[in-house]
Amino acid sequence: MTRKILVVGASGLIGHAVADELSKNHEVIRASRNGDERVDMSDIDSVRALFERIGDVDDVVCCAGAAPFKHVTELSAEDYEDGLRSKAMGQINVVTEGMKRVADGGSFTLISGILTTVPIHGSVASAVANGAVESYVVTAASELPRGLRINAVSPTVLKEATGYHSAFPGFKQVPAEDVVQAFVRSVEGVESGQVLTVWG
Amino acid sequence: MTRKILVVGASGLIGHAVADELSKNHEVIRASRNGDERVDMSDIDSVRALFERIGDVDDVVCCAGAAPFKHVTELSAEDYEDGLRSKAMGQINVVTEGMKRVADGGSFTLISGILTTVPIHGSVASAVANGAVESYVVTAASELPRGLRINAVSPTVLKEATGYHSAFPGFKQVPAEDVVQAFVRSVEGVESGQVLTVWG
Repeated sequence: MTRKILVVGASGLIGHAVADELSKNHEVIRASRNGDERVDMSDIDSVRALFERIGDVDDVVCCAGAAPFKHVTELSAEDYEDGLRSKAMGQINVVTEGMKRVADGGSFTLISGILTTVPIHGSVASAVANGAVESYVVTAASELPRGLRINAVSPTVLKEATGYHSAFPGFKQVPAEDVVQAFVRSVEGVESGQVLTVWG
Repeated sequence: MTRKILVVGASGLIGHAVADELSKNHEVIRASRNGDERVDMSDIDSVRALFERIGDVDDVVCCAGAAPFKHVTELSAEDYEDGLRSKAMGQINVVTEGMKRVADGGSFTLISGILTTVPIHGSVASAVANGAVESYVVTAASELPRGLRINAVSPTVLKEATGYHSAFPGFKQVPAEDVVQAFVRSVEGVESGQVLTVWG
């Protein structure tokens, strides 16, 4: 069954691949900070305006958000807040507005990452934002109305993201295709309240 | 060995009990929003001023922070941000300033709670804040300098907190004393990067 799916962060490495894959069977709307449909997730008014422009959808996928990389002794309150605003509140804003717009039985799929609980140099601010996202997904699932589902995909470093390989020494790399399939599983499957790890 | 220990949130049910227990063997400085040593954890300048007044310490315990209780369909961006500011950034601020002030080999013990991953009605904003705290503790442990340790205690509902019992239907209640001992274990033990659950 063809679904109408919003992909936020569709210009990133993962978001682009997810949007391409979902486009094979569904109608995909690509949104990003500088894309066709512009949105700044960290600004809930911008998220609301996006949904007003595109109308109702069946599913929403988020592949956006970032946090500063600095050693814990260098991280300021503002650094943590920047990460929370971008990756945590940004994605939560998409669900908060989206739950008024997504069709009965539809789904939200957010993104966290292996850095939630596995540290690399400078990853503490990322962990803080990811931890907020994962606890949100796991608990919000119980309260979402109208049979809506919510999951997060937690990728490790991608084989294709060669610029990051040295920051993940000895970590198994996964092909983007494996991460894409976790998003497909969340959108087309039945699970809810899950963190789908793609750690190789 | 007698240690000098700062307890933030010492006027709350848990903080008061932890401060009393630690006082048996250590010098305890009690801080809270309205106590002897005043501090607003969510304001890093207030945290810095607290450490300037009390000087260096051996250990820091945090038992403070709260988040709004509302159904996920009623939670606004501001509600999530209030919880993050109070319980997550508040505690992170205490560590950020404290790591300049805590003696070599000292410890930080923060508080999260069972609501991080186990939902009750209206607990999503608490989960978001707690998730940030737990991922912080688990990953910051790898980067703290000078042998500093960090853990979080995750209590379930307390036997003594009778006003909350109906909100936790069927949940095992734990005596405050069990939660206190988890804080003692973190302060006087050797563990780091752990979430010490006290779920009964």
